[in-house]
Amino acid sequence: CFSNTSVNSSFIDISGVYPPIPTAFSSNGKIDYVKLQENFNTWNTFDFAGYVVMGSNGEAVSLKEDEKLDLVRNVKKMSKPTSTIIAGLGLPTTDQTIEICNRVAEEQTAHAALIISPSFYKGQMNDLVLRKFYEDVADKSKLPIILYSVPANTTIDLSTSLVTALSQHPNIIGLKDSGGDITKISEIVYNVPKDFQVLAGSAAFMLPALLMGCVGGICALANVLGDQVCLLYKLFKDNELKKAVALQKTLISPNAMVTRRFGVPGLKAAMDLKQGLHGGRCRAPLLPLNDGDHKSLVEAFEKCGHPLSR
Amino acid sequence: CFSNTSVNSSFIDISGVYPPIPTAFSSNGKIDYVKLQENFNTWNTFDFAGYVVMGSNGEAVSLKEDEKLDLVRNVKKMSKPTSTIIAGLGLPTTDQTIEICNRVAEEQTAHAALIISPSFYKGQMNDLVLRKFYEDVADKSKLPIILYSVPANTTIDLSTSLVTALSQHPNIIGLKDSGGDITKISEIVYNVPKDFQVLAGSAAFMLPALLMGCVGGICALANVLGDQVCLLYKLFKDNELKKAVALQKTLISPNAMVTRRFGVPGLKAAMDLKQGLHGGRCRAPLLPLNDGDHKSLVEAFEKCGHPLSR
Amino acid sequence: CFSNTSVNSSFIDISGVYPPIPTAFSSNGKIDYVKLQENFNTWNTFDFAGYVVMGSNGEAVSLKEDEKLDLVRNVKKMSKPTSTIIAGLGLPTTDQTIEICNRVAEEQTAHAALIISPSFYKGQMNDLVLRKFYEDVADKSKLPIILYSVPANTTIDLSTSLVTALSQHPNIIGLKDSGGDITKISEIVYNVPKDFQVLAGSAAFMLPALLMGCVGGICALANVLGDQVCLLYKLFKDNELKKAVALQKTLISPNAMVTRRFGVPGLKAAMDLKQGLHGGRCRAPLLPLNDGDHKSLVEAFEKCGHPLSR
Amino acid sequence: CFSNTSVNSSFIDISGVYPPIPTAFSSNGKIDYVKLQENFNTWNTFDFAGYVVMGSNGEAVSLKEDEKLDLVRNVKKMSKPTSTIIAGLGLPTTDQTIEICNRVAEEQTAHAALIISPSFYKGQMNDLVLRKFYEDVADKSKLPIILYSVPANTTIDLSTSLVTALSQHPNIIGLKDSGGDITKISEIVYNVPKDFQVLAGSAAFMLPALLMGCVGGICALANVLGDQVCLLYKLFKDNELKKAVALQKTLISPNAMVTRRFGVPGLKAAMDLKQGLHGGRCRAPLLPLNDGDHKSLVEAFEKCGHPLSR
Repeated sequence: CFSNTSVNSSFIDISGVYPPIPTAFSSNGKIDYVKLQENFNTWNTFDFAGYVVMGSNGEAVSLKEDEKLDLVRNVKKMSKPTSTIIAGLGLPTTDQTIEICNRVAEEQTAHAALIISPSFYKGQMNDLVLRKFYEDVADKSKLPIILYSVPANTTIDLSTSLVTALSQHPNIIGLKDSGGDITKISEIVYNVPKDFQVLAGSAAFMLPALLMGCVGGICALANVLGDQVCLLYKLFKDNELKKAVALQKTLISPNAMVTRRFGVPGLKAAMDLKQGLHGGRCRAPLLPLNDGDHKSLVEAFEKCGHPLSR
Repeated sequence: CFSNTSVNSSFIDISGVYPPIPTAFSSNGKIDYVKLQENFNTWNTFDFAGYVVMGSNGEAVSLKEDEKLDLVRNVKKMSKPTSTIIAGLGLPTTDQTIEICNRVAEEQTAHAALIISPSFYKGQMNDLVLRKFYEDVADKSKLPIILYSVPANTTIDLSTSLVTALSQHPNIIGLKDSGGDITKISEIVYNVPKDFQVLAGSAAFMLPALLMGCVGGICALANVLGDQVCLLYKLFKDNELKKAVALQKTLISPNAMVTRRFGVPGLKAAMDLKQGLHGGRCRAPLLPLNDGDHKSLVEAFEKCGHPLSR
Repeated sequence: CFSNTSVNSSFIDISGVYPPIPTAFSSNGKIDYVKLQENFNTWNTFDFAGYVVMGSNGEAVSLKEDEKLDLVRNVKKMSKPTSTIIAGLGLPTTDQTIEICNRVAEEQTAHAALIISPSFYKGQMNDLVLRKFYEDVADKSKLPIILYSVPANTTIDLSTSLVTALSQHPNIIGLKDSGGDITKISEIVYNVPKDFQVLAGSAAFMLPALLMGCVGGICALANVLGDQVCLLYKLFKDNELKKAVALQKTLISPNAMVTRRFGVPGLKAAMDLKQGLHGGRCRAPLLPLNDGDHKSLVEAFEKCGHPLSR
Repeated sequence: CFSNTSVNSSFIDISGVYPPIPTAFSSNGKIDYVKLQENFNTWNTFDFAGYVVMGSNGEAVSLKEDEKLDLVRNVKKMSKPTSTIIAGLGLPTTDQTIEICNRVAEEQTAHAALIISPSFYKGQMNDLVLRKFYEDVADKSKLPIILYSVPANTTIDLSTSLVTALSQHPNIIGLKDSGGDITKISEIVYNVPKDFQVLAGSAAFMLPALLMGCVGGICALANVLGDQVCLLYKLFKDNELKKAVALQKTLISPNAMVTRRFGVPGLKAAMDLKQGLHGGRCRAPLLPLNDGDHKSLVEAFEKCGHPLSR
């Protein structure tokens, strides 16, 4: 039922832990590649499967197309040769999305494209429209596609039946689910083909998601506590469930500080406090944390046994 | 910080699987104890820890006070001597709730009271008001109290900080969480004292909830597939996680049919198709399933390997 | 298409302004009829078309059946002979609702029944179920029925098509719409028969609602500022639109204090500050305003030119 | 309290009716200026105060920056010399928004900028962040700024207190409110300075909004029924309220078809049926109406006395 373009099934293994890296900016508002390199010097010491660039935490919506292409080129260079690079390439229209996917494919700077659901015209984004969007992109993109459901930003939660339908497409290889509904995640894993890979979209529920069949996680918290998030994954793989449960519980409150509660400004603030990492400011309108919020963030990490201070 | 009334901490073990039993009605609209006895004849063959009577699935809001007292008396008689009886006794006011708890306590027909959050005046139900409500009830109730968070019915999701505060009260022994947010459930388990018992409010996410520290589940689906839900619990306790995961996944779609999708009419329709169980009609305004919905329900059970037909 | 019971179309004129009266309680928690009589002494001096008893502001959910019957009897006596009495008589089941309507009808203590939509089983309350509920009640109730849509309490907003269908029933004479969506209100007025009467459910939007065809309002604020709300209605009827608009604008912020913002405790606090009116406490779990909220309430009335202090 | 850049208060009169024009595309996906000119030939015959270009209905999110600058240039040429041109120029970052405002200001192709609230990072878009965003844009934009609240697309409803604060800024001249909460609109009009101009964001509630103090409307429906929407405005200005109310009611259901119900594809489908107007396709992922939806749309216009067919 798919068009007969020459897209072959292009399975790539995306299991493991990925930080969705924030974009470092210098004081003049441009991307700061020196700071980014320093972050990679730290990140490359962890057991990450790879990196997600230009996800929600990368402030993708605030980057221009040229910046995006440049950023992914640099990330490819700064990461390890073995790292899988996943680039956030969803744009408001089908054609724009296909175009940027194929530019990145040509440059061979990423292995897969993470495609956020279009969301501006919420009232029209029913399953039919979303299915056509993703199938058209997958038909024509030379990069394999990973679906991206992030209702906190889009208010659109890709439905089980939609994901199930799309999982049949040879060029759609997985899903990042940031909604965190463990029932829905379990149901999706039950319904899709075995080689369709579901990734938890947050460290907050990575362990139960792994238990139910997810193959890894794209976790904002991994930018800050890379060792701990990788350890959680390893404990699960090693069947050390008791230790995994204990660790998982200590990550929830710190995770909230860098996601739901304080967003990208929270994530960058936490990085700024951590040896070897640089956060810096976000592009406006996002503002830095005020003092009270900064204190709450510091305390949450400390209280759970993961102090930030250098 | 609690009033010095003579309430002693009254821990009772509420771990294990409980069906929140539906109330059988005869054609004249009265409670049908003959049919209920037949259901108990079946239910008592399973490894339930006990029964929840007059929960949301018991149509508690549709029962008058006399009917409630009578129903819990009969349930006490029909259940096994070892069964723990949990009675849904939350009413719109603090005083009414205390009064009915103490009448049931006097009659010794239940071991604990499940107290739904008041919800009519949603705009006023902040953490302060809810905390005072639960503390006042717990102070004066002679039955131990189990908090009940069921946002699908109340639109109120008891917050982690509220539950954490209430978990300190000597007469509040646990929480039934039907919201199903595994992150929130994990966070609560992490924050409360060790003897505070959290129960999953649905079979849909019982396994991940058990993994993260819940001690059991109150599961509508257990009314229909008692053996399977008890097996899921046993597999977890026996550390047979692979089998548990496989079983858990088959329960999600059937569970949706008797909860979120078709509600109590769905639950009763499923019971009517099962050997040894009687569902029957709900009190209006709830209507029986139409033919199309009935077919969807039957198919969901069948497709997941749990056919209903006798 | 309605059952052939002997229900005749029983049009009664419900146009004009009604306060949905709060229920006065004495310190022992019982209904305080002395205080209620004092309130009526004040209220009866205004040009109200009548009174709504046991609406959301009357804490109907916190009253027992005997209290309700007694309360409406007393309200009938305390009001003026010309007052139209509308009693909030909706209960969780169809049968209970019919029963109490007919008891009040027999006692001849109210002219019409305001029936809130059942709402506990939100997932099942589709238009079909709600239509059957209201038609069954209307078929068998000896009191004429007024539909009541109050999504702030029920999260259910009776749809235009549902209200349009129900407006054909000979024993359903009107709608109280507290949702405040002026587009929906206008659409309903456009679709229903001419003698179907729509009442604004709040003083906040009474003037635009009157403009679009509503015949009056049931306004919490009328309990406190009865003269002003009646004046607003009179200005509209007298075609003094400029003055009406100016007055309407001054009522919005005070209205928010006694509804959305602080609920029944806010309403009662405002009454306590007003000469000739008594508010008192609500039944728990509702709590009195704290000092900060009390101050906000006082200031909102003052700032808009309607000071409360005696 | 504003920065001392050389921004002078630049009041311009934005009262009256504006169509937020859709962008015509040719079959190759490019902007079709021939079709657009034909639309203007029709639109220029009506009493519009001007045009809104690149609003939500203009598919602004699907246009690239060059296309935008080109489009507004052409609109300026195609409109009447007396037309006020309002350009939708909000972008995800503060800097990008300022930059495009000033490019359009330099080219003198628009009189004011309509700035949608940034919305991707919903969790962070509190009043403080939004206030800073709008003040920074207003400080540095050489075009006067109109706030734009459109919760159906952004899920962010600019609050009364935020709009009140921003209305003090000399370079913020008004608000387009598409939320349609008449209580909020009235409250805003009551709170802002007299020369701050509020526009109804839809024909569905334009008359009650005008009554409460709005100075006009930006109405998708005006693209299709320009004469009728202008007539509604005229009837209000001429104090012909009875006729205005009657007309307003007939516009609600047709309006729903081209907004909430079927969105921009509905708007374009309606235009395609109207003599002298061309709709055409939207950029994907938006899809054309299916046959059933198309029929519903046609019927809604016909039933309300505004048939579309040529």
